[in-house]
Amino acid sequence: MSGPVFNRIAVIGLGLIGSSLVRATRASGAAKTIVGTARSEKTRQRVVELGILDEVMETAGDAVKGADLVIICVPVQATGAIAESIAPHLADGAIVTDVGSVKQSVVRDVEPHIPQGRFFVGGHPVAGTEYSGPDAGFAELFQDRWCILTPSEKSSPEAVEKLSAFWRTLGSNVEVMAPDHHDLVLAITSHIPHLIAYNIVGTVADLETDTRSKVIQYSASGFRDFTRIAASDPTMWRDIFLANREAVLEMLGRFSEDLAGLQRAIRRGEGDVLFDLFSRTRDIRRNIIEAGQETPEPDFGRGRPTSSSED
Amino acid sequence: MSGPVFNRIAVIGLGLIGSSLVRATRASGAAKTIVGTARSEKTRQRVVELGILDEVMETAGDAVKGADLVIICVPVQATGAIAESIAPHLADGAIVTDVGSVKQSVVRDVEPHIPQGRFFVGGHPVAGTEYSGPDAGFAELFQDRWCILTPSEKSSPEAVEKLSAFWRTLGSNVEVMAPDHHDLVLAITSHIPHLIAYNIVGTVADLETDTRSKVIQYSASGFRDFTRIAASDPTMWRDIFLANREAVLEMLGRFSEDLAGLQRAIRRGEGDVLFDLFSRTRDIRRNIIEAGQETPEPDFGRGRPTSSSED
Repeated sequence: MSGPVFNRIAVIGLGLIGSSLVRATRASGAAKTIVGTARSEKTRQRVVELGILDEVMETAGDAVKGADLVIICVPVQATGAIAESIAPHLADGAIVTDVGSVKQSVVRDVEPHIPQGRFFVGGHPVAGTEYSGPDAGFAELFQDRWCILTPSEKSSPEAVEKLSAFWRTLGSNVEVMAPDHHDLVLAITSHIPHLIAYNIVGTVADLETDTRSKVIQYSASGFRDFTRIAASDPTMWRDIFLANREAVLEMLGRFSEDLAGLQRAIRRGEGDVLFDLFSRTRDIRRNIIEAGQETPEPDFGRGRPTSSSED
Repeated sequence: MSGPVFNRIAVIGLGLIGSSLVRATRASGAAKTIVGTARSEKTRQRVVELGILDEVMETAGDAVKGADLVIICVPVQATGAIAESIAPHLADGAIVTDVGSVKQSVVRDVEPHIPQGRFFVGGHPVAGTEYSGPDAGFAELFQDRWCILTPSEKSSPEAVEKLSAFWRTLGSNVEVMAPDHHDLVLAITSHIPHLIAYNIVGTVADLETDTRSKVIQYSASGFRDFTRIAASDPTMWRDIFLANREAVLEMLGRFSEDLAGLQRAIRRGEGDVLFDLFSRTRDIRRNIIEAGQETPEPDFGRGRPTSSSED
């Protein structure tokens, strides 16, 4: 642990990511004072009860006053409006960042509002779980995970450096990337997997009731893996697909072409085509495990699920 | 634990499932004597080293002599040939079963070979991991998991009852189902999820080298979940898709239609369509967790992956 990187940080939006950021900042000592706000009264009250913030404000404008770092943690389509509302209240020299999963649209929506002498640097901590809300957050969420910063031509190098130091203090590895490159890579690693997972779970949701109950009963045979990421926050994900439309449609096109090829191989009984693909794909997982991005434990090291006693 | 259900069981094929069956039978005391065989010399040697069997035979014909239960644990397309080769050696009254993930084709391929006074009952323990081979097996694999039995008109009720008792002794829950119903349910819960996982991992494998390395680096954002089931045994899965062609193509058709609808919604910017789907899919996961088929832990309760020291 090094000393505080910032004097006072303001966190706008206190869901899974925002509340984890608050906890991680506190645990690492990355800032002296941590204040924040959330749009909903219920979330603000809950955060007061949790006692994780020095002060909970009612508006984003109030929250950012005197802060040298402002972190916007709201769904990407709402980021521009937040930037507009906080702009008049930003302290001289303040750094503004965000945590959105799409970066080109965020830079486009936020940057016009940032006044002279304040600096916006887009950010994306590649971390999360399928749970939402302030109770789902935890201090270790960013530990050993990547945080991607996507400065534009307007971002000052000093701001990028200071923000990098902040994320490193929280335990993250920092990589700097152009916003469009970020959006393409994340379309593949995150957005398409989520879209496909939502889609197959939707296909199952549309089955007749008795078949659906069998699918739930036998979900351990593969299907349940998909339901985890299809349980993620709907507003956040709606915004991501709308904001990263071009890259998502491009990668979806490739996926669909490949799937049509597999479909044809099955129809024609071409076992060699199937075997070749199924052999190639094993290497990718081995590479991911070797890169420290996944556990090698069988079945994700999943605890044995037990019958729930919930109603 | 009750007493032994069978006197002598013969396990043909000693991979993940076969070797787990051997271990589970031993641990539960479900049989007095356990013998087995595997096609490859290397596997047979390894099983001798592991010391999990009373005797390792060189051929399936030798293995089944005197056994009152024979369990065929090979890829589904190889099941018919095994049945043919063991038929002359089966003891009077012997029960023959299998563990294949497709049941209509197995019943069709096996039943003609079964002599008078011996009984075939198809079986499918819905359990597994992404690992293969005799070292990957473990005694607890079937504990609290479902085992589906798919008797045909020729299966004797007594054989079904005795086989059910065997699986229950191993800790499984047993359900009896028609072979065609099994194949439809498993197409949805298992075969299509695996096909889609293989497909997206294949799409990534075809990316240019530098993009692919970024995808591996950022795989924790969703993609890595798919790579687990796409690391499963290629021969086994090739056989499953060829053997369950009709049900797989039917469900794949539904999946592709739904995906085309999502693609259109993204292209047109129809946020409501996306939000509605993303909200509906959460319920399915809750149902799966409540049915005791999945852990409620965030991120599958995954251990924090660490950088590997492997080369």
